[in-house]
Amino acid sequence: MRNRRRRIGDVGEHRWLRTLLDALASVGGGRVLVGPGDDAAVLGPERRPWAVTTDAQREGVHFRAGWMSWPMLGRRAFRVSASDLAAMGANPRAALLALEVPRHLEVRALSAFVRAFAAEGRRHGAPLVGGDVSGGPRFGATVTLLGVLPGRAATRAGARPGDAVFVTGRLGAAAWAIRERRAGRVARIPLPPVRLGAGVTLARLASAMLDVSDGVVQDLGHLCRASRVGAVLEIDRLPLEPACRRLGRPGRLLAATGGEDYELLFTVPPSRLARLERAHLGCRITRIGTIVRGGRVALVDAQDRPVRRGRAGFDHFR
Amino acid sequence: MRNRRRRIGDVGEHRWLRTLLDALASVGGGRVLVGPGDDAAVLGPERRPWAVTTDAQREGVHFRAGWMSWPMLGRRAFRVSASDLAAMGANPRAALLALEVPRHLEVRALSAFVRAFAAEGRRHGAPLVGGDVSGGPRFGATVTLLGVLPGRAATRAGARPGDAVFVTGRLGAAAWAIRERRAGRVARIPLPPVRLGAGVTLARLASAMLDVSDGVVQDLGHLCRASRVGAVLEIDRLPLEPACRRLGRPGRLLAATGGEDYELLFTVPPSRLARLERAHLGCRITRIGTIVRGGRVALVDAQDRPVRRGRAGFDHFR
Repeated sequence: MRNRRRRIGDVGEHRWLRTLLDALASVGGGRVLVGPGDDAAVLGPERRPWAVTTDAQREGVHFRAGWMSWPMLGRRAFRVSASDLAAMGANPRAALLALEVPRHLEVRALSAFVRAFAAEGRRHGAPLVGGDVSGGPRFGATVTLLGVLPGRAATRAGARPGDAVFVTGRLGAAAWAIRERRAGRVARIPLPPVRLGAGVTLARLASAMLDVSDGVVQDLGHLCRASRVGAVLEIDRLPLEPACRRLGRPGRLLAATGGEDYELLFTVPPSRLARLERAHLGCRITRIGTIVRGGRVALVDAQDRPVRRGRAGFDHFR
Repeated sequence: MRNRRRRIGDVGEHRWLRTLLDALASVGGGRVLVGPGDDAAVLGPERRPWAVTTDAQREGVHFRAGWMSWPMLGRRAFRVSASDLAAMGANPRAALLALEVPRHLEVRALSAFVRAFAAEGRRHGAPLVGGDVSGGPRFGATVTLLGVLPGRAATRAGARPGDAVFVTGRLGAAAWAIRERRAGRVARIPLPPVRLGAGVTLARLASAMLDVSDGVVQDLGHLCRASRVGAVLEIDRLPLEPACRRLGRPGRLLAATGGEDYELLFTVPPSRLARLERAHLGCRITRIGTIVRGGRVALVDAQDRPVRRGRAGFDHFR
């Protein structure tokens, strides 16, 4: 009986989602090539599949008013969702925007947001094709992106023991800027990178892939859970933003657990490492670990000693 | 300068949306067969187009907690969006759900909502393939549905003077129930009807179509604006729910302006009326008016006298 009155705040986002998605995952039909629980769903027909993803950005939850201009928020909203498509190896083709708008919001601000969102979408091949507007206490935007898959879809579920773990770009810039802002200091929150080209190329080489939104430690955990494997993550190998590197060990932990990087985290079998080296990705990649048996992500330093992590990444209800 | 500080609450949802959509409407590419401003967008390739729509349902805006059980809210959320696909002549094939969840919400309630949403989707051909969960002050669900078009897409923009105006089913049940609830009386808020089969058939016959969400008067106005025509709407012909019919003239006005009917409003050229009569739709249809030149919707009684309407339908910011 006790369980029947549990609140969402006691259970946590990821645990609740996993329970529910496990129950729903088997229900897809022939047209659902990739179902719930990945960065995006993939829908048949198999010769011309579509990838589709939906993501909310809410004031007070995903960002704070005043930390970014309205045009930057619009561009950011597009890029956060585009990152999910990149992680599947898909190219965006259309965008939809469901807005929650407080009455007191200035028309100019809202228009700036939508225009910047639409311009960013056009720039990356996805015109704004529809949407919805409703009133509400706080500004929020739920973005849906549809994309096409030029090749294979990369899911979270294909990593095998022995595969190498890589990440694109550098980690920690957003976590550092948010920390500074929370401390009352001025810092520019960076726009998420666009890894669409890299995503398409990597989808052909990677055994598993996802984007880093909750922090590389937690997201590697998601990948390991979906692939039923474990991983060793070498914290001293993490490609740090200079601001984090200057902080020493605390900066490495911040980069490992802070989230909002929107870089691609992927695993590559040893047999494909040579092809990976020759691939043109348009961004740096860094090997940060290895897939192993078991179900745990072990964080170790350069001497292979376990590293204690603090907060393990972002959860909306923790 | 005065205009630069205008608030969304001063401008109104429909006017702001129109302004912005007009600016964006020309930007679609070759793959966008129907762009912003219709019930759903339609994306190519032309031989196998997809229809896609996104819609938010928020506590305190679109419904009030306690007016409906959580499973009914889940089914309702699916049907409200399915109605947009029906209005294009599309069949749903996949559903996505972005949830805003307060910490205090019971796990049982949220699970009941999602399970009922997913079951309703499966029943109508659209498994739940993905989603997103974030924290927030009030419960809300943003639904994205993807559908396929077995035939022609019906838009809002094809009505011509002389076309007959029809509506499926009966009007006013939801408006009446919400009025009763607001007055503190118990009344069952009805589930939106499912008009998917009728929508596919009607898309072949109708010159224009949309679903009735804001009230038949206002929605006919949307259709007329998109088609650059006017209409005469005969209020005494409206197919009323018995509860509204018993109220007499106020009941007719309530049914004409109340909204939330999710019936299909469509126009048919005189040359296709005989085919419409022979069509198997699975629901009643009623002729309620005629398309004319000009841009106004004139509400008239059986003696062709103008009828004064009160509130002209739903706007989130009015």
